Amino acid sequence: MPPTRTKRAAGRPHHRVLTRENITKAALDVIGVRGYGGFTMSSLAAKLQVAPSALYNHASSKQEVLRWIQDDLMAKVDVSGFTGRTWEEAVRIWASSYRDVFIQHTPLIPVIAVLQVGGAPRTLAMYEAVTAGFLRAGWEEARIVPAIVALESFIFGSAFDAVAPEDIFDTGPLTDESPRFTAAVAAAAARIGGEAAEEAFEAGLGALIHGFSSPGTRQQPSS
Amino acid sequence: MPPTRTKRAAGRPHHRVLTRENITKAALDVIGVRGYGGFTMSSLAAKLQVAPSALYNHASSKQEVLRWIQDDLMAKVDVSGFTGRTWEEAVRIWASSYRDVFIQHTPLIPVIAVLQVGGAPRTLAMYEAVTAGFLRAGWEEARIVPAIVALESFIFGSAFDAVAPEDIFDTGPLTDESPRFTAAVAAAAARIGGEAAEEAFEAGLGALIHGFSSPGTRQQPSS
Repeated sequence: MPPTRTKRAAGRPHHRVLTRENITKAALDVIGVRGYGGFTMSSLAAKLQVAPSALYNHASSKQEVLRWIQDDLMAKVDVSGFTGRTWEEAVRIWASSYRDVFIQHTPLIPVIAVLQVGGAPRTLAMYEAVTAGFLRAGWEEARIVPAIVALESFIFGSAFDAVAPEDIFDTGPLTDESPRFTAAVAAAAARIGGEAAEEAFEAGLGALIHGFSSPGTRQQPSS
Repeated sequence: MPPTRTKRAAGRPHHRVLTRENITKAALDVIGVRGYGGFTMSSLAAKLQVAPSALYNHASSKQEVLRWIQDDLMAKVDVSGFTGRTWEEAVRIWASSYRDVFIQHTPLIPVIAVLQVGGAPRTLAMYEAVTAGFLRAGWEEARIVPAIVALESFIFGSAFDAVAPEDIFDTGPLTDESPRFTAAVAAAAARIGGEAAEEAFEAGLGALIHGFSSPGTRQQPSS
């Protein structure tokens, strides 16, 4: 850390060492505070306490920083289950860790969900490990990517749900007009306590795994 | 429409009639162009060509406009299948129309996914119709809301995927490092042509429906 924060003329060299790692971390901090809309190369330079020109010496564009972020987050996703565990166990470990990563970074979901993977080696390493696990479990090659994408869609949506307010389904003054839904919300809360997002995630993941495991639909399970 | 666009002093009455409908439509236009981060009461007033004070006479806050938007979008979701069709058919119709609505409005997904439903009568009418359909199909009351939330998570994530670039999984210069994934992407493309997002949505929805329909897991199917 620099000893004091002083205003510098643009372009004047700074002693702070800029690395891919500290640029990525600072970018995640900026997005966490300002949202993705507030993330610009100049806001990132300000966060790093360097001139924009110094930042551009290390990162060619916002797009490049974004790819570093993608790679950094995807490297945290746990694919270890795909070597040694059953397909179902591996998918559960992978999906849970994937969701955990994006619960911490929901503002990035709309961006990462549509971001190309080319040029992101750790992201591709994640997909390679998952694909290898599906193949080992006997999946037909052409069915694997749609299944991974479907699971990811569920994971991204579930990350948003995990940060929703607990009383999101409080029907308030409209209770009389939605009696069945209000009762179903109360019944779910009575059964599961305060873990509504966990319950929905487990229910959906279990259904997806069960559905994808059915003989003849998507794979020939080998485990 | 006003005949000419002229600058007006703040607070001066304007002849344009402000209604919930045209305020909602203008807000969706603003968000479509600027993203949700660019949606403020003053940007909305500018879009409507009225002074902010005139807008505040009709909408008390950005939060109120957001609730109108939520209600407007949720009213477009097709729940008709839940009266008369089988549970599976009804869920397919509902989920497809729900995804279609949010494909048109992806910037709103992070907001609507965490927005409370109280005070949004058409949103609650949607949930009421879905819940009634699940009950009719024999679902245990306490299992319904987690299943609806799981389906919604999948739907929101799938809406993002539908607007992703077609070549999102082009592995480019890293093909040699991800041979299995690259081959699986090619195999899926060869089988389904250019409809990757549709295929993933159908695969995931089919798996969820199959998983949720399994006897003993979530419901006793009656149809």
